[in-house]
Amino acid sequence: MNVWFKDEEILMSHGAGGKASRKLIEGLVAPILTSHGSPVCLGDSFNIAGTDYWVTTDSFVVSPSSFPGGTLGELAVHGTLNDLSVAGAEPLAITSAIIIEAGTSKDEVNLQLEAIGRASQDANVPVVAGDTKVVEHGKGDGVYITTTGFGRSHPKARLGPARVAPGDVVVCSGSVGDHGITVLMARGELDFTSNSLRSDTANLWPIVKELLDTFGDSVKWMRDPTRGGIASTLNELACDAKVEIMIEESQVPVTDPVRGACEILGLDPFHIANEGKLVAILDAAIAHRAVELLREHPLGRSASTIGTVHESTTPMVVCRTEFGAHRTLDMLTGDPLPRIC
Amino acid sequence: MNVWFKDEEILMSHGAGGKASRKLIEGLVAPILTSHGSPVCLGDSFNIAGTDYWVTTDSFVVSPSSFPGGTLGELAVHGTLNDLSVAGAEPLAITSAIIIEAGTSKDEVNLQLEAIGRASQDANVPVVAGDTKVVEHGKGDGVYITTTGFGRSHPKARLGPARVAPGDVVVCSGSVGDHGITVLMARGELDFTSNSLRSDTANLWPIVKELLDTFGDSVKWMRDPTRGGIASTLNELACDAKVEIMIEESQVPVTDPVRGACEILGLDPFHIANEGKLVAILDAAIAHRAVELLREHPLGRSASTIGTVHESTTPMVVCRTEFGAHRTLDMLTGDPLPRIC
Repeated sequence: MNVWFKDEEILMSHGAGGKASRKLIEGLVAPILTSHGSPVCLGDSFNIAGTDYWVTTDSFVVSPSSFPGGTLGELAVHGTLNDLSVAGAEPLAITSAIIIEAGTSKDEVNLQLEAIGRASQDANVPVVAGDTKVVEHGKGDGVYITTTGFGRSHPKARLGPARVAPGDVVVCSGSVGDHGITVLMARGELDFTSNSLRSDTANLWPIVKELLDTFGDSVKWMRDPTRGGIASTLNELACDAKVEIMIEESQVPVTDPVRGACEILGLDPFHIANEGKLVAILDAAIAHRAVELLREHPLGRSASTIGTVHESTTPMVVCRTEFGAHRTLDMLTGDPLPRIC
Repeated sequence: MNVWFKDEEILMSHGAGGKASRKLIEGLVAPILTSHGSPVCLGDSFNIAGTDYWVTTDSFVVSPSSFPGGTLGELAVHGTLNDLSVAGAEPLAITSAIIIEAGTSKDEVNLQLEAIGRASQDANVPVVAGDTKVVEHGKGDGVYITTTGFGRSHPKARLGPARVAPGDVVVCSGSVGDHGITVLMARGELDFTSNSLRSDTANLWPIVKELLDTFGDSVKWMRDPTRGGIASTLNELACDAKVEIMIEESQVPVTDPVRGACEILGLDPFHIANEGKLVAILDAAIAHRAVELLREHPLGRSASTIGTVHESTTPMVVCRTEFGAHRTLDMLTGDPLPRIC
């Protein structure tokens, strides 16, 4: 068994969605489970062998549990629906398991359950099984929610890193970094507040379905860039597809408050979590029409083409700045953003 | 919306599996989710509408995370497999989402992952999706694991409280209370230790499958009596099926260390959690043969007929003591056994 995780204990950075997270997953979790016969793909949606059904699971521990534009409960539903959606699977049902810290107010539990209920109802995906556990005060933090989603393949979906090829186009459905910076602001970790900063938490299935309905297998790969931001997501793709991805920095929508906060904090907006954005790799022939289609939808108003896929012996993501310089866009390192989802 | 949960905050007793748990689920969780269109059945396996597929989810927060006979990781796999099994669904796949407290040793994470891997391999049910989150030291307790299971109906299964009728026989696959008392002992909460006390954690699918293969729809209802013990499980059935259940106390296997610990602590073994026991309601015509079949299997060596189902205007569980007296066997109240699974 190839367990190469060397750290003696788990650190916050192992949960931040960047390099340390990948080390924990690829160096410890995956090798142990695969050595016992479980499949290697962990952390994304998975197709249950021999069926059209897909499954995904995520725990949500965002702090604070309410923030401008969303709540833990809403995030827990959207996050899991989105993991199914970007795999090309229509969400059919979710489960919700809740760990409550003793002493948490009924009002807080009520609020998060209402958020789960509303989000599932809006998405027309019922919560079909649940569980509730209680742990002592000081052994949790209010409410943690684990959702698991079940979905069925969209008939036209044919997605995967193996389908990504030089010449393909990278499309992003809107501005990046909103969720992560909003949560930091809600925690009081920024020196300013902004009335326009809001989490982008949303169910992506409606726009995914439109893309697949309209363009079928010209949609080659999709992902929702959560922890670690679009930089981590695209780096994972570059490795899996063995390509170089060139991003045009000026084409990636970033709102002013997000840009300002990132400058103050020394963060890259491309490393910040999103909870309602789609990154898709499309056949160049349909990319322009796909962006137009996305822009007709409230979730894709500021969609744009942000880059292209190139042949390379070294998988990497390169960013061309507004001044024409090139910089390597690496995965997130360190843990500037713990408990962001 | 019929939210009738009145407590101002969540207490440990709301997680102990007895009356307070039922209050939290039925008075708060279920009404909120059902008001948003989700089905009413929460906490058990659920059949995904229009399919043969079943889903169940559970968070596991047992403390300590290792105890004689088992570990948190093993429990997290078995518990979810068992919830599917007693619904008559063959487990096909599980997911595992882990919340790790920062500062937890690599060794502990390794141990629990190995336990998940081994238990899933032994059951031949792969872990098909996973997630890992990290929370600050003091906001968790080592490792919490949420597993979700996905299964397919056994072709002969026709189970449900509506099928339970007067004259049916209650069968239990072995001694009760072993898991709960073992965990209490491992916590140092007993004045004695016992070398023979071990958790009964086990995957019940092999014996469930044999019962269904052999007796088909003569098996009317099954449950694994975890939190709240067989008393809570049978009370839930009595309410759902609107019957009286008469239990012969002398017929319920209880090991000496469990009996002794319960006497010292003032607990009823019928309230103590099990993690590898099956309670089944069977047609009287096959009950004797079913017990014989169970006894041939390592998981059912001390299986026995423990009671009968009777017509009643008041759903209840009555226990006939060894001296012929009758006592009402109520659900667990209070929280003598927090974080038992």
